[in-house]
Amino acid sequence: MTTQTAAVIGLGSMGYGVASSLLRAGHTVHGFDINPDSMARFVSEGGAEGAMADVAGNCDVVISVVINAAQTETVLFGDDGIVPHLKPGTVVMSCATVAPDFAREMEAKCHEAGCLYLDAPISGGPQRSAKGELSVLASGTPDAFDKARPCLDAMASQVYELGDEAGPGSAMKAINQMLVGINLAGMAEALTFGMTQGVSPEKFAEIIPQCAGTSWVLENRVPHVVAGDYTPLSAVDIWPKDLGICLDVAHSAKFGAPVTAAALQQWLAAQGSGLGREDDAALVKVYARNAGLDLPGKS
Amino acid sequence: MTTQTAAVIGLGSMGYGVASSLLRAGHTVHGFDINPDSMARFVSEGGAEGAMADVAGNCDVVISVVINAAQTETVLFGDDGIVPHLKPGTVVMSCATVAPDFAREMEAKCHEAGCLYLDAPISGGPQRSAKGELSVLASGTPDAFDKARPCLDAMASQVYELGDEAGPGSAMKAINQMLVGINLAGMAEALTFGMTQGVSPEKFAEIIPQCAGTSWVLENRVPHVVAGDYTPLSAVDIWPKDLGICLDVAHSAKFGAPVTAAALQQWLAAQGSGLGREDDAALVKVYARNAGLDLPGKS
Repeated sequence: MTTQTAAVIGLGSMGYGVASSLLRAGHTVHGFDINPDSMARFVSEGGAEGAMADVAGNCDVVISVVINAAQTETVLFGDDGIVPHLKPGTVVMSCATVAPDFAREMEAKCHEAGCLYLDAPISGGPQRSAKGELSVLASGTPDAFDKARPCLDAMASQVYELGDEAGPGSAMKAINQMLVGINLAGMAEALTFGMTQGVSPEKFAEIIPQCAGTSWVLENRVPHVVAGDYTPLSAVDIWPKDLGICLDVAHSAKFGAPVTAAALQQWLAAQGSGLGREDDAALVKVYARNAGLDLPGKS
Repeated sequence: MTTQTAAVIGLGSMGYGVASSLLRAGHTVHGFDINPDSMARFVSEGGAEGAMADVAGNCDVVISVVINAAQTETVLFGDDGIVPHLKPGTVVMSCATVAPDFAREMEAKCHEAGCLYLDAPISGGPQRSAKGELSVLASGTPDAFDKARPCLDAMASQVYELGDEAGPGSAMKAINQMLVGINLAGMAEALTFGMTQGVSPEKFAEIIPQCAGTSWVLENRVPHVVAGDYTPLSAVDIWPKDLGICLDVAHSAKFGAPVTAAALQQWLAAQGSGLGREDDAALVKVYARNAGLDLPGKS
């Protein structure tokens, strides 16, 4: 197996799992984060040391696992950005959910700098990230795929190759997030609607997954509601951000997305009422509060 | 096996399948419909003859498979309604999607008339109906279940027993229809949004079913869009009706359902623009028209 030198920028719940998965696969991995504790923890678990400007020139692969487009631009091209320090031919994988146009812009700037670029949004959540079992919705040049392959293999169980330039990867991620954001809101709305009709969350969880109304996220999240456990696996805060990206992209394309827009209002109400850091199944709390319903678990 | 005498009222795409399934199971089955051709066809395939008022007193089971609450009330208790002609202990199964309160009202009126009542909305579509493989979301007294059992066994592969009185069956059906109506609208919105970003329906159909954004209806309906085939398996016309019921029930419960309401507007646009009799996957045409997109297949 080819072992590479990689930098993972952003050691949050997703990035830490990516970095750890690369380590387990035998790569040399530098981890960077604005939180020094996360960096120290990663070094204590086998991560390589060194300041970014010093080690960047040794890297084969840079994986950016930050929150959004603004952070992506900062870590790649900001005052302390890594790209100017990279050697020619290094591949930059960008994993944040961003607009396809932004991905194309980043690819052009990386090409100008002599680097390769992979538009590579990830999905699967922190647990699959920790196991190296993410899904990657990727597009980029064949060279970029070739160079990134050993790291992709280490971090992902499925890599969808969606085209030979940046854009389609981010487009497919936006499509998926639109669906998840809608289906989750639908789940929250239908579950609490059912409670007004005497159907308990437990009964909903027993019957609906066997009916035509089921969805992947419904089956995944309903157990959190039944258990009253909103420990964040995927947080409410993700959805105003990601549906906002979807609607910005839709607006640019003169595409009306009324169901997405309605779902976004519910996510904003969840965020605005202090639920942002809870698991996204907590959207049910917005509906329950508005309808005077008592959900299972601690109130 | 117990063979029974049954009347099936409503020989549309769902009811004809129910009646045929009962015949195959060896029951004596009278079929009734406002369309005399449907009745003649059913007799030619083995259905029993006789006017409703004459044969009603022989029936063990009456299965109403009409469109909505108004038709249900008419066929059961209208001027030519069947219930006054039934012998005591006959079970009336009502399969239309109706409000739980309406189901409770029908149960009370049937009990007054000395009959049993099963609140028994069905799902699965015409193809599963024809095979006797429907799902039934049922609630009613143990006596009603016992009396209906041979016919339930003939028409359904799954019978969910949701409680010992009318109401919960219709409530669970409304919950399921809310989810399907939302998830289908989300599918249509996300698929056409993707087209604005260069993601073809074929690519969507290849990738999204493997991602977190998938749902049962998405996987079931996307092939219709890819094939450009809108032969109605489940028609657009169902959704303004069923989401309307959901929102009426929600309104009565002072439950705000903004995502359902947004989805309903799209279904109304589909119906209003002449797509009512097409397969419900044709909701994509509303989005495509609004965004100037060309869908696969005949335009």
